[in-house]
Amino acid sequence: MSERNRTVPRVGMVGGGQLSRMTHQAVIGLGVHFSVLAASPTDSAALVCGDVTLGDDRGLDDVMAFAKANDVVTFDHEHVPEPVLRAVEEAGGLLRPGRDALRFAQDKLRMRTRMAELGAPSPRWRAVTALEHVTGFADGEAGAGWPVVLKAARGGYDGKGVWIAADAEEARAVVDRAAAEDVPLLVEEKVAFSRELAVQVARSPHGQVAVYPVVETVQRGGICHEVVAPAPGLSDEKATRAQELAIEIAQALDVTGVLAVELFETAEGVVVNELAMRPHNSGHWSIEGARTSQFEQHLRAVLNLPLGSPRTNAPFTVMANLLGGTDPDVYSRYLHVMAKDPEVKVHFYGKDVRPGRKIGHVTVMGDDHQDLLERARDAAAYLRGDDQ
Amino acid sequence: MSERNRTVPRVGMVGGGQLSRMTHQAVIGLGVHFSVLAASPTDSAALVCGDVTLGDDRGLDDVMAFAKANDVVTFDHEHVPEPVLRAVEEAGGLLRPGRDALRFAQDKLRMRTRMAELGAPSPRWRAVTALEHVTGFADGEAGAGWPVVLKAARGGYDGKGVWIAADAEEARAVVDRAAAEDVPLLVEEKVAFSRELAVQVARSPHGQVAVYPVVETVQRGGICHEVVAPAPGLSDEKATRAQELAIEIAQALDVTGVLAVELFETAEGVVVNELAMRPHNSGHWSIEGARTSQFEQHLRAVLNLPLGSPRTNAPFTVMANLLGGTDPDVYSRYLHVMAKDPEVKVHFYGKDVRPGRKIGHVTVMGDDHQDLLERARDAAAYLRGDDQ
Repeated sequence: MSERNRTVPRVGMVGGGQLSRMTHQAVIGLGVHFSVLAASPTDSAALVCGDVTLGDDRGLDDVMAFAKANDVVTFDHEHVPEPVLRAVEEAGGLLRPGRDALRFAQDKLRMRTRMAELGAPSPRWRAVTALEHVTGFADGEAGAGWPVVLKAARGGYDGKGVWIAADAEEARAVVDRAAAEDVPLLVEEKVAFSRELAVQVARSPHGQVAVYPVVETVQRGGICHEVVAPAPGLSDEKATRAQELAIEIAQALDVTGVLAVELFETAEGVVVNELAMRPHNSGHWSIEGARTSQFEQHLRAVLNLPLGSPRTNAPFTVMANLLGGTDPDVYSRYLHVMAKDPEVKVHFYGKDVRPGRKIGHVTVMGDDHQDLLERARDAAAYLRGDDQ
Repeated sequence: MSERNRTVPRVGMVGGGQLSRMTHQAVIGLGVHFSVLAASPTDSAALVCGDVTLGDDRGLDDVMAFAKANDVVTFDHEHVPEPVLRAVEEAGGLLRPGRDALRFAQDKLRMRTRMAELGAPSPRWRAVTALEHVTGFADGEAGAGWPVVLKAARGGYDGKGVWIAADAEEARAVVDRAAAEDVPLLVEEKVAFSRELAVQVARSPHGQVAVYPVVETVQRGGICHEVVAPAPGLSDEKATRAQELAIEIAQALDVTGVLAVELFETAEGVVVNELAMRPHNSGHWSIEGARTSQFEQHLRAVLNLPLGSPRTNAPFTVMANLLGGTDPDVYSRYLHVMAKDPEVKVHFYGKDVRPGRKIGHVTVMGDDHQDLLERARDAAAYLRGDDQ
């Protein structure tokens, strides 16, 4: 098989971020042609990919031309507007996932409505167009209580899309600002969870599904810091329920490619938090930790190839995100991390270092998840410069 | 760390074959800048790599310019002539491995002489400039007997560099043709081996070494067909001896990067067959089968980074090469292989299919090496079209 062989399909990914970068890495073995639509030649994927189209990765003209140049188009983000997706599909472009699936990842009101129809366990929620909707939700008859979680159904402001409101005054600030910025809102109860979980499922147009083990995700300040695969001590019952839920959702929403379902674990079971229809930070562990990485699996799914085995390569795999510190030069620290722990696998995304920015991740595999977590945290902290 | 960060080195690889292609795949996580010097835009690596310099990958001007554009230069083949290497080093270019090491991989007479100096177990051999050298070697006092192995010290003819001569007549044909083509020859005894082995060692300029498990290689018609890692049933004594030999050779020859030592296993021990100073077909299993692949390890070594762990990810990993068949379209067969065995990992090199040409490889990991070997052979045979 050759990229030049006309029987081999061309797949394009819209967006030049680290998900495209790692998808490029996965496609090399598959031997199919891969290109990215990137906004800048210094985008993470554009720095390494052999076929880069520069353009507006949210704009009609560039996405349309990109779809015409490829047999199938997929996405490293959910930011292509629905009218653009519709126009491309109507012109015969093959999008995977398609517009009908993507709208549930793009709009949290639609997602929550659809989850309710499916009977998927969810937080209580309601749409918000006035402060009274929030106060009624928190204080009313079936009151969810305070604090509540306010979310932008689409977009957000100040770079945020989720706010915790401790009382009506804090809720008013969010509701007023959202109204001024024309951001649609919903309110959700703050779920009393014991920890956060995630599960990846891949689904092909043929209808085949492959589900990965349920993982534990450790979030701080709304940012994913660590992932432990599989989630230690999770009951078989909850693990199976989470995997079944992910498969049900992928089927009901007609998802093609990887679907990531973020969940809360509670005393009673699991509750759906968020959906993403693309490879996801909670699945990066699978590059080393599974027979088939989420990136290869996503490609196989969108190409309607038979899916690969999601079997794990070690009892536990731990991933920790690398966040930028204040020193832009991490190379000398990198040497020390490599020397200290030869089993830690470092992934850099080629991004300029800025404080708090995700610039890479580390992965380590073994038998003892506590030991692995400490080693991954050590490496990530040292690379950020915390120890200096 | 960013490819655009000036503290991050630029590494260049001379040659655009599949070794460069898989090195590109490995460099993406490291986040250093990587470019290839390729003869054609349709070379295996040139199809996927983000930074490709087109030029003569054996010629002085292009290799010199490439070395000036990179902080360190390494190789996916041994075909850059020694005068070119010398000129580049004298102009300040940093080659890893350097000319002093590479000449032992480029010239089998020098290699054999050096192995003898080191006391490394080797076949009996001698240089050949006349037929009498061969007949004396085979029939003489300490006669090695017939058949003998004739090898081109450098280059070869008709695309070959190794010939088995059953008698003096067959030897004469090779000696005469080699003389006409100006190809230097040596003769070696045909070692009575039980099987062929190989071992990879990486060595950095700092002097750190990391050695992989000894693997069994299955050759047919002079082409590597399968690799089983580690070599099943190999005694600890022979395994340790092979690993120690590889380390001794890497140190004595001042190799930087990966050194592959191909060996014969005999009743008495192990015998050095060939050396390669680059990632090697016998190490492809390490992409999935080891914590650090030979490609990442080679990069870490030539960049003088601390080396990664060569620890295995499964009890056994089996690799089988994919050779082209007569049908150029392997894509439909590919689907069947993926569907039949979701754990088989396929690597395509992006090459046009020609009968007998290495166009990729498959890898499968698990506990039972016989089962793995059958599955890898099945996949490779099916992709070649043997079953159709």
